[in-house]
Amino acid sequence: MSDPDPGPGGLPPTVSALMERLRQGPSGLGTTSLRFAPREQPPTAETTTVATTEQTSGRPAPGSPIPGLYHHPVPEPDPERVEEVGRRIKRWAVDEVQAYPPEWEDQFDGFSVGRYMVACHPDAPTVDHLMIAARLMVAENVVDDCYCEDHGGSPVGLGGRLLLAHTALDPVHTTKEYEPAWAQSLLADAPRRSYRSAMEYFARAATPSQADRFQHNMARLHMGYLAEAAWAETEYVPQVAEYLAMRQFNNFRPCPTITDTVGGYELPADLHSLPAVQRAIALAGNATTVANDLYSYTKELDSPGLHLNLPVVIAEQEKLSPKEGYLKAVEVHNELMHEFEAAAAELAASCPDPRVLRFLRGVAVWVDGNHHWHQTNTYRYSLPDFW
Amino acid sequence: MSDPDPGPGGLPPTVSALMERLRQGPSGLGTTSLRFAPREQPPTAETTTVATTEQTSGRPAPGSPIPGLYHHPVPEPDPERVEEVGRRIKRWAVDEVQAYPPEWEDQFDGFSVGRYMVACHPDAPTVDHLMIAARLMVAENVVDDCYCEDHGGSPVGLGGRLLLAHTALDPVHTTKEYEPAWAQSLLADAPRRSYRSAMEYFARAATPSQADRFQHNMARLHMGYLAEAAWAETEYVPQVAEYLAMRQFNNFRPCPTITDTVGGYELPADLHSLPAVQRAIALAGNATTVANDLYSYTKELDSPGLHLNLPVVIAEQEKLSPKEGYLKAVEVHNELMHEFEAAAAELAASCPDPRVLRFLRGVAVWVDGNHHWHQTNTYRYSLPDFW
Repeated sequence: MSDPDPGPGGLPPTVSALMERLRQGPSGLGTTSLRFAPREQPPTAETTTVATTEQTSGRPAPGSPIPGLYHHPVPEPDPERVEEVGRRIKRWAVDEVQAYPPEWEDQFDGFSVGRYMVACHPDAPTVDHLMIAARLMVAENVVDDCYCEDHGGSPVGLGGRLLLAHTALDPVHTTKEYEPAWAQSLLADAPRRSYRSAMEYFARAATPSQADRFQHNMARLHMGYLAEAAWAETEYVPQVAEYLAMRQFNNFRPCPTITDTVGGYELPADLHSLPAVQRAIALAGNATTVANDLYSYTKELDSPGLHLNLPVVIAEQEKLSPKEGYLKAVEVHNELMHEFEAAAAELAASCPDPRVLRFLRGVAVWVDGNHHWHQTNTYRYSLPDFW
Repeated sequence: MSDPDPGPGGLPPTVSALMERLRQGPSGLGTTSLRFAPREQPPTAETTTVATTEQTSGRPAPGSPIPGLYHHPVPEPDPERVEEVGRRIKRWAVDEVQAYPPEWEDQFDGFSVGRYMVACHPDAPTVDHLMIAARLMVAENVVDDCYCEDHGGSPVGLGGRLLLAHTALDPVHTTKEYEPAWAQSLLADAPRRSYRSAMEYFARAATPSQADRFQHNMARLHMGYLAEAAWAETEYVPQVAEYLAMRQFNNFRPCPTITDTVGGYELPADLHSLPAVQRAIALAGNATTVANDLYSYTKELDSPGLHLNLPVVIAEQEKLSPKEGYLKAVEVHNELMHEFEAAAAELAASCPDPRVLRFLRGVAVWVDGNHHWHQTNTYRYSLPDFW
């Protein structure tokens, strides 16, 4: 039996149709609240084609998507919300947690956290809900910058720093004599101040199960950072499969998986932990994380030492040119996206609980919004000269 | 208003009474299945007194409890079950996963995993249920020994090794080309073979939420290992509060928190994640982990380099003699135990769901069984000469 003809983007038409239903939201009695708020249009289902041979050659124009990258364009994020989140997140970072010194203000502005969060969470009922995601996103970047990468980070001793910061998310329960020193330690540096405050706001809006889920995903993230750091310190270049395993942990996963808290509802823990749901989440996280490797490729080439990313690891381990490694990494991304969409469509058919559908739609839209932010963030990213 | 007179072990009588109810199991219609299986007697509520002044001086006799350590004696574990678990776990370790080479057989036997697991899980319905816990316990020790400590472990590069091993518990979802290399990697060494097989058996018996809980607790454990490794590598001696924070992660927590799976029931995820339940679990885990520091004190003094444990860190940071540091660490343990019992008793009163009660009882009994194993494992442990 041959496969049915592929639809747009190479998906069989039944899968495309299911994904379309997932994107647009369920219909029928009692499901109105599961649609995106009326102010936002649902993302279009338009997809780019995968054929790279039809692209023009040279370096794509700034703000263009990566040629051949399978993705879904999103509507321009609501400018009023973007501005309001941008204004409030800067007040939080500067006044509430002193997340960065004045000389990093350009970088903070260049990060465009308002546009990022509004693009990724079009179904947030209010700006307060968007702020939950915005604080955590900034806090995660402060930790990464200060402990791991750009601003004084180092792989040496990282395990101790990340664990103490993790206790701002997952509190220590200890004796009366030692508890105050621990509580005080959470104010000792910008990463811990940021985590502590962002988690406090998050936990106020989340159920205990959602808080537990977030802690788990942050523990995964920190394990991923520590694997990457171990390899940097020992100058180990992993096999491609090992790199992809590490990148499932050093991953955006904590961000799309708060989509229900930011949306003002809950995917119950027993549904969230189903293996099929976990698989869909992992594939989405992996696709969107590989997209980050692709958009940050030239930025990371400029950083000191060998910065591992998927194109570099493929080129190194499979004896390919940088361009061939990059283009193969694009294919890896596209397969992960297709696998995610197939897994989500299967779930939509086999487990049509409206909360599962809305959550999967939220994850899918987060992936699209994350792509949009990377594509359009010309302050941070530029593409290589591979076409 | 003054506090009521303390009961045995310094607990107010109302708390003692609640804990007694928790230990004995609930009564009333429909709760029979929540009692321990009739073959086991419930642990006695007899406690040691905390006064160290009444102890004889010198080194306690082999197999004695630490003088002044607040604990609950348990009945001798059922010898038939001990023997059967011991026989089956050795077959699994040798034949199924090749967990250790023949020359480590003495150490494996000396670990007495059968006695350990039967003492910790008196309510397991069958030996099959005990085997779920036994395999995970052995696997966790293989990882710790081979990657971190006694058998060729090292802090250098540990983050990479632990992450790849963690994927045996929390699977990678990747492309068709790279998936086989990842699956093959899980057979590449004893730690990964052990984790993979033990998790497979566990996941067959667990609900998806219980599997998620276990993954989360193992991620915590691995973060704890990595903090300890970072401090070893940089020769950093943490503050006592920092050490206790690390030890909440590098902690027995994964073991008592599978008590419901091993008991053949489920504490639902929404109850498990309640902050009050999380606090009780953390306190129990911290108490039982500090007890490990105390029983392994002389063993760790003999290991190369400065092996951090609570008595050593207290002595170092608070300018105390080794004996004073040790005795203060005993007090820390006792306070954590009392705090756990107070938290559990409060929960029993405020949230008397029979599954919460049985789970808390299971955690409490695990703590008691873990103490019993440490106390009586004279192959591994001996006490210092501090009395």
